Amino acid sequence: MRAYDIILKKRNGGKLSKEEINFMVHGYVRGEVADYQMAAFLMAVFFRHMDEEETYYLTESMMRSGEILDLSEIPGVKVDKHSTGGVGDKTTLVVAPLVASCGIPVAKMSGRALGHTGGTIDKLESIPGFKAELPLDKFIENVKKYGIAIVSQTGNLVPADKKIYALRDATATVDEMSLIASSIMSKKLAAGSDAFVLDVKFGTGAFVKDKEESRRLAKLMLEIAKKHDKKAAAVLSNMNQPLGKYVGNSLEVIEAIETLKGNGPKDLVELSITLGALMLDLAGVFSFEEGKEVLRKKIENGEALEKFRILVKAQGGDEKIVDAPWETLPVSERVEEFKADKEGYVSWIDTEKVGTASMLLGAGRKRKEDRIDHSVGIVIEKKLGDFVRKGETVAKVFFSEKSDLEAAMNLLREAYFISDTSPGPFKVVEEVIK
Amino acid sequence: MRAYDIILKKRNGGKLSKEEINFMVHGYVRGEVADYQMAAFLMAVFFRHMDEEETYYLTESMMRSGEILDLSEIPGVKVDKHSTGGVGDKTTLVVAPLVASCGIPVAKMSGRALGHTGGTIDKLESIPGFKAELPLDKFIENVKKYGIAIVSQTGNLVPADKKIYALRDATATVDEMSLIASSIMSKKLAAGSDAFVLDVKFGTGAFVKDKEESRRLAKLMLEIAKKHDKKAAAVLSNMNQPLGKYVGNSLEVIEAIETLKGNGPKDLVELSITLGALMLDLAGVFSFEEGKEVLRKKIENGEALEKFRILVKAQGGDEKIVDAPWETLPVSERVEEFKADKEGYVSWIDTEKVGTASMLLGAGRKRKEDRIDHSVGIVIEKKLGDFVRKGETVAKVFFSEKSDLEAAMNLLREAYFISDTSPGPFKVVEEVIK
Repeated sequence: MRAYDIILKKRNGGKLSKEEINFMVHGYVRGEVADYQMAAFLMAVFFRHMDEEETYYLTESMMRSGEILDLSEIPGVKVDKHSTGGVGDKTTLVVAPLVASCGIPVAKMSGRALGHTGGTIDKLESIPGFKAELPLDKFIENVKKYGIAIVSQTGNLVPADKKIYALRDATATVDEMSLIASSIMSKKLAAGSDAFVLDVKFGTGAFVKDKEESRRLAKLMLEIAKKHDKKAAAVLSNMNQPLGKYVGNSLEVIEAIETLKGNGPKDLVELSITLGALMLDLAGVFSFEEGKEVLRKKIENGEALEKFRILVKAQGGDEKIVDAPWETLPVSERVEEFKADKEGYVSWIDTEKVGTASMLLGAGRKRKEDRIDHSVGIVIEKKLGDFVRKGETVAKVFFSEKSDLEAAMNLLREAYFISDTSPGPFKVVEEVIK
Repeated sequence: MRAYDIILKKRNGGKLSKEEINFMVHGYVRGEVADYQMAAFLMAVFFRHMDEEETYYLTESMMRSGEILDLSEIPGVKVDKHSTGGVGDKTTLVVAPLVASCGIPVAKMSGRALGHTGGTIDKLESIPGFKAELPLDKFIENVKKYGIAIVSQTGNLVPADKKIYALRDATATVDEMSLIASSIMSKKLAAGSDAFVLDVKFGTGAFVKDKEESRRLAKLMLEIAKKHDKKAAAVLSNMNQPLGKYVGNSLEVIEAIETLKGNGPKDLVELSITLGALMLDLAGVFSFEEGKEVLRKKIENGEALEKFRILVKAQGGDEKIVDAPWETLPVSERVEEFKADKEGYVSWIDTEKVGTASMLLGAGRKRKEDRIDHSVGIVIEKKLGDFVRKGETVAKVFFSEKSDLEAAMNLLREAYFISDTSPGPFKVVEEVIK
């Protein structure tokens, strides 16, 4: 078998066998397939795609390229949750303690900021003292002891994805369905949970913007999970505006805490409850509808917030942030208001630009080696359908550097469209796919 | 400017600017654009193509990546000839001395065997003592002194093509029109001639098999030449069977000598005369029709053969090959006959397989580092339209190793189709495009 022939076959629209896919993936990890061959292969896949079966083999091949976690020490059904990435998406910070407060073990591995989207681990690291890099045994011990742990990826999971993702990122081959699905699912499967709830975003702030394409991505990932005998469900959620009001690291932790206290914005609450109820459903403890009720009660009675406090303490964080978030989390004191230059309804938001604005402020990374500034971000005052007067504040920008502020302000100006007509009602949960 | 954005633009079907193309080509030669980025870019070009303007810029950019020869020391119009590669294509060995015998300086740089096709330099090196690797000053001196020199590429010409070609060869991105045209024309332009005659092949033995596609390739290359203020003409020639009867290095030199002696096969003679007459036409010394007459006379009166003898001697070769080719050139004594297994007309030949058979015998290279065996090859006894009886010899195979012979025999068996009906007349020169 030669890499050349496999590239040629895919280039010409052929269907690859399990062996051919394994040859490319494992050959690449071992350095026997050159990176330029893998790059040409990925571009051929971009144009010719992979069908469901090929995507399944690609996922499996990547999953088996490294360690596969064994979480069987933790009693009960382990349910993982994954988001395809959005702007202001702090659902993990809400859903994880919410579900854990129902007695379901939450052993969650999360990622860092990527492009215009934030990452749960970066957000948690705005909490003074919080440690997200735990060794595997400590991770499992915490889940057993406290019912919850959220860590940065541990162990040598899916080295194929690390290598291939870096290459896709440098060669404009990120946005292809089979590559996205296999990248996500190989990591989820290797992380060892029994069931998965997938939050698949569409809209201006998502990586896959088209709703139909996102639906196909969701179905493809559910299919892969099922072929691995894992339970799974997906939520198709609308990313045509930031989720909630706060974008940035400390700011999103603050909004998550407010949500766990019962003061959350409607869209964030609805999506969190939906994702959490699906997790309870897959765990087999409550039906989806019952689960929603239970979760709302866990917020009302303070148990979800208490579980969040336990999580923070268990991983070395300062629990004072729960009681006095604005005072204890690092939030920049330099704030500039972004004001409307005309009167009308907020009719469209280029949400990716809002995310990029936050990234440029320092909440994300322009280059891999950049350090995150946890204190910066954006508070959205006006969302889709809101009426604004000329000169009224649309968003508040928390910044550290004046030059970053200017770049962010320019992007926000480009991101907001104000017109005479209201865009109609907004629904964050478009569809639940089981 | 970033390689990423240029890859993305081409991937999405955009048209690249001169600056973007220069950035990719020169960045790659300098090592600033990574090979995996160039590989992804080439695959994107494979799918999205480049238009005439982009191809022109790519050619220019590649041409300027290294030295550009100055042949102005040599008096007169310098006309170069290029073939896109075929099986049994020894026209340069015939045309170069033929044209030089008319007093037109022939300063020719030629290539080596590539895939299933032979290379003029490898063929000339079957001549005992012949030196194809001459320094630039010696090359020019020979042309001034003898009116002819044929050398392997000298100087640092088009390093971009060397790097990019090697990458295309490893990533299944060889067969794309704009990449083929720019690769050929950048080398021709850098080699410093004033005019070019292009022999563009189509058919089962050509790299571009489809006739219409070959015509487009020819026109694209003529357009590029014209934009560089160079005169050019093209011949569209039929490669649905090997050219002449002999395939292999020594064997092709023998057939070229026989042709210069007036005993050449019809197709080789016709193509050589056509190419040569176009060269005389571009040089401005004879019209195309007059040129054909003049060239036929140069064969009859022995002047063309004499010029070949001068070429061989001037580059250190043993001139005895001219008078006694079979005795002085290395030709294997091990010969096996490939016989027809049924009666009928030769109705179709997969000529690439004939070329590959010759390559496997050792006449070409399986890997870059392989050494050429000049003594092996194939003598074609039956060509398209010929009638064969069962058991009659179709081809003679000159081999060194028994195992190579078997592989070659299998390919020949696959290459020949014998049926009840004759395929109709065969025309080697399909079209002359000026």
